Amino acid sequence: MSRRLCVIGVGLIGGSAARRARGLFGEIIGVDADSDNLEQAEALGVIDRGCDHPEQGAETADFVLIATPVGAIEPLFRGLQPVWRSDCVYTDVGSTKGNVIEAARRVFGKVPGNFIPGHPIAGAERSGVEAADSGLFEGKRVILTPLPDSAPEALARVEEFWTYLGAKVEQMEAGRHDEVLAATSHLPHVLAFTLARMLGRKDEQAEIFRYAAGGFRDFTRIASSDPRMWLDICRANREPLLQLLGEYETALREVAALIRSDDAGRLYACFSEARSAREKFLQLTENNHA
Amino acid sequence: MSRRLCVIGVGLIGGSAARRARGLFGEIIGVDADSDNLEQAEALGVIDRGCDHPEQGAETADFVLIATPVGAIEPLFRGLQPVWRSDCVYTDVGSTKGNVIEAARRVFGKVPGNFIPGHPIAGAERSGVEAADSGLFEGKRVILTPLPDSAPEALARVEEFWTYLGAKVEQMEAGRHDEVLAATSHLPHVLAFTLARMLGRKDEQAEIFRYAAGGFRDFTRIASSDPRMWLDICRANREPLLQLLGEYETALREVAALIRSDDAGRLYACFSEARSAREKFLQLTENNHA
Repeated sequence: MSRRLCVIGVGLIGGSAARRARGLFGEIIGVDADSDNLEQAEALGVIDRGCDHPEQGAETADFVLIATPVGAIEPLFRGLQPVWRSDCVYTDVGSTKGNVIEAARRVFGKVPGNFIPGHPIAGAERSGVEAADSGLFEGKRVILTPLPDSAPEALARVEEFWTYLGAKVEQMEAGRHDEVLAATSHLPHVLAFTLARMLGRKDEQAEIFRYAAGGFRDFTRIASSDPRMWLDICRANREPLLQLLGEYETALREVAALIRSDDAGRLYACFSEARSAREKFLQLTENNHA
Repeated sequence: MSRRLCVIGVGLIGGSAARRARGLFGEIIGVDADSDNLEQAEALGVIDRGCDHPEQGAETADFVLIATPVGAIEPLFRGLQPVWRSDCVYTDVGSTKGNVIEAARRVFGKVPGNFIPGHPIAGAERSGVEAADSGLFEGKRVILTPLPDSAPEALARVEEFWTYLGAKVEQMEAGRHDEVLAATSHLPHVLAFTLARMLGRKDEQAEIFRYAAGGFRDFTRIASSDPRMWLDICRANREPLLQLLGEYETALREVAALIRSDDAGRLYACFSEARSAREKFLQLTENNHA
């Protein structure tokens, strides 16, 4: 397929992709602002060699995977602009797509046809190259949000890349991607962070965590996610997220009102509807994995 | 220890307790309003024989474990009152304790000294006797909320019972129990139900569940819990739960305001505090299991 892969940001996602992509490339170059992390990636064999500067790493690559935090993408585009090559394919893994597209427009005037915005839906609350796992994308969805001007051959190569990594590739309009992910990922993360923080304060007064069980552990797992990454995501996808936070607040007040008025019938209907919704989600997910 | 155990409500909790308690009793009688469930429990060997009426089942028992939904306890006490024996020990597994104590006071005038309110913190979103698991209580906490009038020998026997089942028994004042569990269990359940319901409606319009990942699966796991059981719990523990729902709403509005005003510094501090709180919870839980 290609000869040289450059992974910019060798964390969990970039590192996992590099591990699995080895068979596709003759050489894998890693770029990371954290030189210790880069050394570790090299020592682990995730990359062949490290490079401090994105433009150096990308200059000679045939395929550039941008796996930095979402907030770092615009300055990165500025750095890459002087060495941007028409015979190279560029893609990213950002959890939000509208802001990445806007950043590209600001830097390049228009989104380059050989940059295909992408998002592998494969998170984990772990981070860092030491958690890199070549099976991370197996059976997972990768959403690409190409634009009308996207080059078909660049799109085909990015699809080929993720398919090789075991993922199922889909295309979606960027705005819809951001709305869907705000609902299924960004909102739950904010809810979990908010609960963990609130109960952490209570725990300092009254040691409540000792009595929390497995349900609480699962519910708050995503609150162990990287705060820096989630800060970026919340800022990047602010409008859809705020919209959903408002809707959630309304839905929560509705349930609270049913509890307050002891409306057993409607409260039961709420909980039943919730359980049915989750069963439907589980069925869909099982089909996905099949 | 005792000769005959009567388990009233042979679901996940009652069935799991019966499975593990076999070595302590010569005979295990199961009582359940659902006769199919009772037949299944007998067929599975979870109980020795089934009985439709609580008073018949409890009449000749030495130890009665009440494992019905919380909302069924008051009528059950009324049924048991005529056959209540001073040489038998009674305990329950209700997720809320204040309402069980109030129900006992209403039925008996005062809480009988040989009834020890209890709560094994070992839930699962599964339910029914077919999910019964003799290891369910291994290493889990059981909170007993005895009263000043509780008989020390009854308390000792209930402690002995749960210890035999592998649990770690603690005592707590009932009001504190209800506040702690509202925070660590009841609030998260209501939050998860509310999210699953809200997103279920969105999914009907826009198929968002296909793009939800593992984080969402874990976050909403508790939304698969039995709606009937959670209706009872919300009604039984209404005041502490409403208090916390109000606090959560305030906390959520605070986070939404930080996102709206793009206050990166404070938002990062929020998420970091949340992550630290969860790490603390995980450490405590690991210590608990050690």
